[in-house]
Amino acid sequence: MARNTQVSADHNAPPITQTLARFVATHPSRGWSDAVEHEAHRTFMNWLGCAVGAAQHESAEAALGAVHLLQPSAQASVLGRSEMVDMASAALINGITSHTFDFDDTHLKTIIHPAGPVASAVLALAEHKGLSGRAVLDALVLGIDVSCRVGNLMYPEHYDRGWHITGSTGTLGAAAGCARLLGLNEQQTAMALGIAASQPVGMREQFGTMTKPFHPGGAARAGLMSALLASQGFTASPKALEAPRGMIQTISTKYAWNEVTDELGQRFEISFNTYKPFACGIVIHPSIDACSQLRAQGVTADQVERIELKVHSLVLELTGKKEPADGLQGKFSVYHGCACGLIFGKAGEPQYDDAIVNREDMVALRRKVVATVDDSIDEASADVTAVLKDGRKVHVFVKNAIGSLENPMTDAMLEGKFHDLSDPVLGSEATQALIASAWDLAQLKDVRALTALAKPKK
Amino acid sequence: MARNTQVSADHNAPPITQTLARFVATHPSRGWSDAVEHEAHRTFMNWLGCAVGAAQHESAEAALGAVHLLQPSAQASVLGRSEMVDMASAALINGITSHTFDFDDTHLKTIIHPAGPVASAVLALAEHKGLSGRAVLDALVLGIDVSCRVGNLMYPEHYDRGWHITGSTGTLGAAAGCARLLGLNEQQTAMALGIAASQPVGMREQFGTMTKPFHPGGAARAGLMSALLASQGFTASPKALEAPRGMIQTISTKYAWNEVTDELGQRFEISFNTYKPFACGIVIHPSIDACSQLRAQGVTADQVERIELKVHSLVLELTGKKEPADGLQGKFSVYHGCACGLIFGKAGEPQYDDAIVNREDMVALRRKVVATVDDSIDEASADVTAVLKDGRKVHVFVKNAIGSLENPMTDAMLEGKFHDLSDPVLGSEATQALIASAWDLAQLKDVRALTALAKPKK
Repeated sequence: MARNTQVSADHNAPPITQTLARFVATHPSRGWSDAVEHEAHRTFMNWLGCAVGAAQHESAEAALGAVHLLQPSAQASVLGRSEMVDMASAALINGITSHTFDFDDTHLKTIIHPAGPVASAVLALAEHKGLSGRAVLDALVLGIDVSCRVGNLMYPEHYDRGWHITGSTGTLGAAAGCARLLGLNEQQTAMALGIAASQPVGMREQFGTMTKPFHPGGAARAGLMSALLASQGFTASPKALEAPRGMIQTISTKYAWNEVTDELGQRFEISFNTYKPFACGIVIHPSIDACSQLRAQGVTADQVERIELKVHSLVLELTGKKEPADGLQGKFSVYHGCACGLIFGKAGEPQYDDAIVNREDMVALRRKVVATVDDSIDEASADVTAVLKDGRKVHVFVKNAIGSLENPMTDAMLEGKFHDLSDPVLGSEATQALIASAWDLAQLKDVRALTALAKPKK
Repeated sequence: MARNTQVSADHNAPPITQTLARFVATHPSRGWSDAVEHEAHRTFMNWLGCAVGAAQHESAEAALGAVHLLQPSAQASVLGRSEMVDMASAALINGITSHTFDFDDTHLKTIIHPAGPVASAVLALAEHKGLSGRAVLDALVLGIDVSCRVGNLMYPEHYDRGWHITGSTGTLGAAAGCARLLGLNEQQTAMALGIAASQPVGMREQFGTMTKPFHPGGAARAGLMSALLASQGFTASPKALEAPRGMIQTISTKYAWNEVTDELGQRFEISFNTYKPFACGIVIHPSIDACSQLRAQGVTADQVERIELKVHSLVLELTGKKEPADGLQGKFSVYHGCACGLIFGKAGEPQYDDAIVNREDMVALRRKVVATVDDSIDEASADVTAVLKDGRKVHVFVKNAIGSLENPMTDAMLEGKFHDLSDPVLGSEATQALIASAWDLAQLKDVRALTALAKPKK
């Protein structure tokens, strides 16, 4: 028997499935400011570097092993590798690798990592069909707008409930982007969103396992398939997102519907995207940034008597590990972060190698860091004083760390990050060519010109 | 920043992911009673007939159209069709077709349709690998036990919240069945369940669209892939089901953990599986059954002055449509149901054809049905009196309709249902051979002997 009970259902939700479908199907190509257009390139660039960088990771090997059991056709590239697989599997694996290092983009309002699901789906489909870079950029901006607006609508209650919001909203973003690429009309796009609405992916319990990066990959795959199904006439509820027993009311207790409709087509959520300069939790970033600035001012490790670090209590709560034993523990050590800043001026994935975490000079330096709590300092800030052996003191206060919305990474920094990730996989020269192609994305007649550059030389 | 709030989290849940993994990995082959073994055959038989029967449906065409865009390899059969696709896509499409007519099995305690996700995944994998029928039966019983026990744990709150429980628990059942078939050990099986736990499928808002049958199909596919990923070393949380931010606490507010552990390995949930004799909602079944019994007693339509029907109020609330205009509306008309019973003695998919619903004698007879509410009659019962033109009255009271747990369909009835579904697709002779092969499943050395019979003659 059908049961009719549901706690606090909203029977008067606005028709957001249809609204988003119309927006995705009809918004003009390149219908946004130069700033949005540039941010789309930066988002794509950062995502691409992360995916290439993790191409040889054991999670990529395992996922590719499973996909190979299906004997897939060679439609689209596994970025950073020579293998081609069917486009849905390429979306899956590139989504996994792009999130493997936790180094991808962050929409800070919702802590969604928006590019993983959307870019992975969109590029795989575009590559198979030989579509233009312009079409990919349009699909990326619109797809990310869909997933982040639905995220705004549900955050934080939905996240608090246990959902990994990147995967749960990402399926919609990927479906939207792929529907746009396929040229689906408004009604078909609504069906694509509707099919996707039955497939939110990801629980936070998976953090720390390979299934965490599976979430954007699974969302990318499911979103792409939803668009393909809709293109073949497969149907779903036209109210699949907003109905009382639709996706949103089933997986969230907050439904701020206006987040979907406010300034739709005027304000683009990709504008609020950020990129991590450091391969660890954001809470450590101000401290690393401050120590990097000490280094830039000429301070060296052997001059240092001690480093006085003042931070918000949350920083030590989450990342107060004094003696990390390996790279993973290093990611939860503000002490290791400070040593990275002063010795390397960076904290990329290589600086979280087990060997680096245990290197003698790193261990010695991090033991000289004296951290104290000062809750008058914001979580996003850090106050660092290097007390030198000669008695001098060098002080740096970081209000907003590099990589924050207020203090974004420059394009040159993004290129440097890309090189750090990609050089070990593709080599420096090939990486440079790939970077140039990514900046040139809007001009590419066929994105296969770009994906061809993301393969290692045999 | 990580948020730590969650309403009423249970931090002391028992380790059910590990418990289920051990059960699936180590329970002996054929480790159950003859009754359970026979029910497994009946479940498989009913599922197979439903899948073959809907093979030409437009939802199958659309899904297959999308899958063909991936240019899949030919690993496993689309049941009832000549096409072969990769095993994951076969799981998807056979899961869709098996639920397309809403005619598949029902675990009444949870209203899960358990075979769709599990059998679709298991048979596709077994076909590709050339495994035995014995292995398939073991995987089917154990997989269904996993999904239905997790269903018992969450029902009804989880369903009330908006989840289509067949798809949300089905991913776990499919993963369990496929892990068993692949011979994964306990630890690997826990990973398969863990990966699956991030992929519950399906919202009730989709009822009435193709995305409803997509749910068991999507669950079958996701479960199969979860097992393949685990076989390649992909990792997930070993507490992915029960942890505070794991699957169950994220998608349900009821967590009756004991439902997983009580009599595990002793009581098998497949024992409580039922099969629909009629292609409509269960609430109409007692009335159809009663009118079929009138027919068996020799009552014919032209003898009838009127039919007095007494049923529980819920029956008319849900299915009180007096003048259905087409087949779909006919499914919500107890009046049409009564006419089917008296004129055909059955109410399969053909009896819900638009032409039948509008046939003159059917319209005339359903207008002679006078339904009255009597809440002293159970929802599962019906009281019918045929008042004949010659003044005679013939009375039938159905306490438990045919197809209920108390009054199950006989094996012969299941065969008849299978023929009704499959004959139009495969022809009667080929259908008979397929039925014989399904009864013989435990003896099949290679299930490809069976799937070869599920293809139409060219």
